[in-house]
Amino acid sequence: MDGVNSHLSPTTYHMNGGDGPYSYVQNSDYQKEVIDFAKGLLNEMIAEKLDVENPSFDPSNPICIADLGCSVGPNTFYAVNNIIEAIELKYKSNPQTPSFHVFFNDHTTNDFNTLFKTLPTNRKYFAAGVAGSFHRRLFPNSTLHFVHCSAALHWLSEVPKELKDRNSLAWNKGSVLHTSPVKEVREAYSAQFRKDMEEFLSGRAQELVRGGLMVLIVQGLPDGVLLSETTVGMGFCVLASCLDDMAKTGVVSAEKVDSFNLPFYHPSSKELRALIETNGYFHVERIEKLSTPWRHETPDLQLVGMHLRAVIGGLIEEHFGDEILDDLFQRHIKKLGESAFIYDEKYRKEANYFVFLKRKVA
Amino acid sequence: MDGVNSHLSPTTYHMNGGDGPYSYVQNSDYQKEVIDFAKGLLNEMIAEKLDVENPSFDPSNPICIADLGCSVGPNTFYAVNNIIEAIELKYKSNPQTPSFHVFFNDHTTNDFNTLFKTLPTNRKYFAAGVAGSFHRRLFPNSTLHFVHCSAALHWLSEVPKELKDRNSLAWNKGSVLHTSPVKEVREAYSAQFRKDMEEFLSGRAQELVRGGLMVLIVQGLPDGVLLSETTVGMGFCVLASCLDDMAKTGVVSAEKVDSFNLPFYHPSSKELRALIETNGYFHVERIEKLSTPWRHETPDLQLVGMHLRAVIGGLIEEHFGDEILDDLFQRHIKKLGESAFIYDEKYRKEANYFVFLKRKVA
Repeated sequence: MDGVNSHLSPTTYHMNGGDGPYSYVQNSDYQKEVIDFAKGLLNEMIAEKLDVENPSFDPSNPICIADLGCSVGPNTFYAVNNIIEAIELKYKSNPQTPSFHVFFNDHTTNDFNTLFKTLPTNRKYFAAGVAGSFHRRLFPNSTLHFVHCSAALHWLSEVPKELKDRNSLAWNKGSVLHTSPVKEVREAYSAQFRKDMEEFLSGRAQELVRGGLMVLIVQGLPDGVLLSETTVGMGFCVLASCLDDMAKTGVVSAEKVDSFNLPFYHPSSKELRALIETNGYFHVERIEKLSTPWRHETPDLQLVGMHLRAVIGGLIEEHFGDEILDDLFQRHIKKLGESAFIYDEKYRKEANYFVFLKRKVA
Repeated sequence: MDGVNSHLSPTTYHMNGGDGPYSYVQNSDYQKEVIDFAKGLLNEMIAEKLDVENPSFDPSNPICIADLGCSVGPNTFYAVNNIIEAIELKYKSNPQTPSFHVFFNDHTTNDFNTLFKTLPTNRKYFAAGVAGSFHRRLFPNSTLHFVHCSAALHWLSEVPKELKDRNSLAWNKGSVLHTSPVKEVREAYSAQFRKDMEEFLSGRAQELVRGGLMVLIVQGLPDGVLLSETTVGMGFCVLASCLDDMAKTGVVSAEKVDSFNLPFYHPSSKELRALIETNGYFHVERIEKLSTPWRHETPDLQLVGMHLRAVIGGLIEEHFGDEILDDLFQRHIKKLGESAFIYDEKYRKEANYFVFLKRKVA
């Protein structure tokens, strides 16, 4: 059958599992705050855009919700709760309220065992897990009513090959992300994101019912700002320089460092809007910048380090082996603490976009 | 919401995970043969009883299949494949064939991570995992078209309390199952099975569409035969006597042995039919005894031991601790080898029943 997810995910495309000190469960407060910031907008948009008269939203059938890139909780449980509360409010004046079927999706290597064991016991929905990349098809046609995807779309399906090719103009030596001043590097990242978003949107367009809703919370950049001009980007530059230090002292090979690139891309709101409009399956109902968590706080470097490790620890481990993990993240925290930018609010420019889409009916 | 599965499963109600030497993945050939034996009947019954004119089976919507008590594969993948092939055959003359959405269910402690990683890459269906006891609700109303449950319904939701109560007539001292000559023990087991089946059937009756189909493959007994008269039952008596030996030498406490009971029940076909008819939601389309795997072969005791350990290892470990596992299963294999009954075909009476049900329309 065409479109079924038979794509083998890279082994490391997942947050750290379990509930230990480096787990995502214990290190995802930032992402939780983003979800909190989005709650008001979510309520408002669901109230405005969910059409209870649409036969696909007939409350005698369950409302099917998918959280894509859900990781292991607890954030996904908060997000799903917010969505269900908002939808229930919308049906309040109806004689019948629908039941809810919630699908938690992430890569095959995600720790679904932990996810299932920590499902809220007082939940108001039937739950299922779906393993596979959201850049491929995950559900049959027209079976979802609401898709949520938070802090996940900046993950690319793969690192563009030319970044690792020393004969390419886009060879990303000395950098681990699109923080490079080299235009071709940024273009390679942006082209991959364009391709991935096109697959994501086209897949969801088939899976959502006509008139179905989708909220994306995307880690991005303000229009006209480069990643290298932000705290996040500069933080990754520091990470690259730590790897460079380790190469110089022979802890890791220089070649390993040169070939290491993170599969992340941070789009601007203009880019996002253009991609969605080019794709053509969705009405852009709203794109709005959310407040940024921790923006006005003196950063707790230990916490920043733990959060980063929960997210990219697996990628580091796969490329370099697990023996460098403690050393690298300790160096990183130390060097961050010695950098002036980390304490300077003016670089905290990263933008989380709230994107609310409606599947076109025709 | 009423009926959502918030039941916390006992920690050990699952087959051994992973793919090591004691895993279910490596030790489930018996169960695989049962599925093979059922294949012909399955094809025949689907051809006969699936009503493609039923609007719920309109091929423009996906056919939703659930395998309940699926464990970790590969058997569940064979079974699902057989079902899909049979349904596709049924739609062969239709201009449209449906897509398939398959839900793999087992207890929350099942190793879903392994299940997801081993999903066939060439599968013709969208897959999801559902964690929770099938004695509770698992899906919204009227969302399933076909339920399969093989070699799982003999698991009770719990061991009847009176079996552990030394003041009860049903105190099951010296036995680990309903092999006891004491009538009250058998009645306690059978009452629990009745209660569990009632919950199972009523839950599925809500979840299946009207006209939906269900196939149960149930490990049971021929009518009029007691468990203690079969190889399986006698094998469990040997296990009980090994535990008794270990209590006598002080390896385990006698009290621990007395309070250990397996949550299994082996019904007769008469019992099964009566329970389904009393429940009332399903037409019994067929109950048939399947051939029994390995019936005519000299048993490979090592293999028998490994299979048993893959299934009940977790229960033993929870009750006695993991330090007795090797010792107990070695004693068991040795003592089985010294027992005449194990080589005697006449005791191999256990019956696997193929039960085909159709959800009543009215």
